[in-house]
Amino acid sequence: MTKIVLLGAGHLAVHFYEQFTACPKVHLIQWYNRSIQKIYFAKEQIKITDQINELEDADLYLLCVKDEAIEPLSEKIKTCGLVVHCAGGISIDQLKGTFRKGVFYPLQSFTKERFLSFDQLPFCVEALEKKDQQLLCEFAKQLGGIPHLIDTEKRAQIHMIAVWVNNFSNHMLDLGNDLSQKHQIPFEMFRPLIEETFQKAMSMGPQKTQTGPALRQDLKTIEKHLDLITDQDIKKLYLNLSTSIQKKHEQ
Amino acid sequence: MTKIVLLGAGHLAVHFYEQFTACPKVHLIQWYNRSIQKIYFAKEQIKITDQINELEDADLYLLCVKDEAIEPLSEKIKTCGLVVHCAGGISIDQLKGTFRKGVFYPLQSFTKERFLSFDQLPFCVEALEKKDQQLLCEFAKQLGGIPHLIDTEKRAQIHMIAVWVNNFSNHMLDLGNDLSQKHQIPFEMFRPLIEETFQKAMSMGPQKTQTGPALRQDLKTIEKHLDLITDQDIKKLYLNLSTSIQKKHEQ
Repeated sequence: MTKIVLLGAGHLAVHFYEQFTACPKVHLIQWYNRSIQKIYFAKEQIKITDQINELEDADLYLLCVKDEAIEPLSEKIKTCGLVVHCAGGISIDQLKGTFRKGVFYPLQSFTKERFLSFDQLPFCVEALEKKDQQLLCEFAKQLGGIPHLIDTEKRAQIHMIAVWVNNFSNHMLDLGNDLSQKHQIPFEMFRPLIEETFQKAMSMGPQKTQTGPALRQDLKTIEKHLDLITDQDIKKLYLNLSTSIQKKHEQ
Repeated sequence: MTKIVLLGAGHLAVHFYEQFTACPKVHLIQWYNRSIQKIYFAKEQIKITDQINELEDADLYLLCVKDEAIEPLSEKIKTCGLVVHCAGGISIDQLKGTFRKGVFYPLQSFTKERFLSFDQLPFCVEALEKKDQQLLCEFAKQLGGIPHLIDTEKRAQIHMIAVWVNNFSNHMLDLGNDLSQKHQIPFEMFRPLIEETFQKAMSMGPQKTQTGPALRQDLKTIEKHLDLITDQDIKKLYLNLSTSIQKKHEQ
């Protein structure tokens, strides 16, 4: 049974805490955070601490902290166990210390307030030693996920693509939501369209499901839409995105 | 029982044909298309024609043709019934003729190859006369949808917003898919992230679910990502979108 120490109290750490306590194959033995208040709610279930030099002996130390905290925090960890960070865009080399090193990056967007199953979730796994790769792959499977051996370079690419499919597509919905509010149209009206957009893109592939005035080179409609947008930045973005669609599909 | 004549053979017309023949409250009496071959498959079920001056008498004539074909086709229709077009961005005034006029715009993205339920689907309804508004609202309900009385101006705004939530968000997935192929990462890995992105945005609202380096003003990660993108247009778009997220969320 894998003995785990969890470090951090952000969205991902809280999700890990919930999954670990629900998973019989995983033994969470301690939770560290520099502010003890944030993890105080868990003190009946699990040992908590805000002292980095009082970590218990474990198989695996999971650093679920902000990107910029990974290096300074790792420097303070004294252990012979395996220490991994969980960040998409950070090199394995930013872990500083004499311990064994690895990365355990779940390709998902976590929010504290929202339950999320780890079932079938891809975990990008990296470790310097083969036995640690195996340990992390095994651990991903214990959580119900699917491990992928991915090095730092490829993980950075995955992280960059995740920005397109998550951050940028969410921004499109967000701007649509803003425009709905501005024009007093309930955003709820767009729900069936949005659901179909994503289901269709995933089942047929997004290249085949592109539609709209930009794809059709329907300049009349594009001009009409630009007339309806008053914010100059949003107007420019509409034009840039339409040009991007046109360029991609005329190739 | 509403007697219908359907005109056109695009994605929407084919979906209407399938729904009408499955719906006992709707009586599809004829299908017109200028190319008879496209609708030949239906000839055992329904009268078909390619002669616009041989349309049967009906309560409702549904023009499901390309935007630019609405005006010239409508000019040729001789009837005392109600003639409606189904386009988001076209004014009711582009229907030319002495008949009663209306618009019946389903807020959805249709593809021939994909089954789609009309259940709970919003229909934007417009008509010059009140009884025709009622007829179209009733018709939307018979199909299982939800009618909304929307004038031409508001419909144009809805159509413009649909471009953001459908065309542009699909383009984000499409660019992500391209980048995956370029870097030999299976796009399937992003499926749980994409599903969560849209489910979360719809349940919590897209403003609350924005995350990523742009929102965090994490310039180091943004620069790293830009280094990974070789296409200059895509690089510029990444930067524009990141700036747009920053501007929106610093307000």
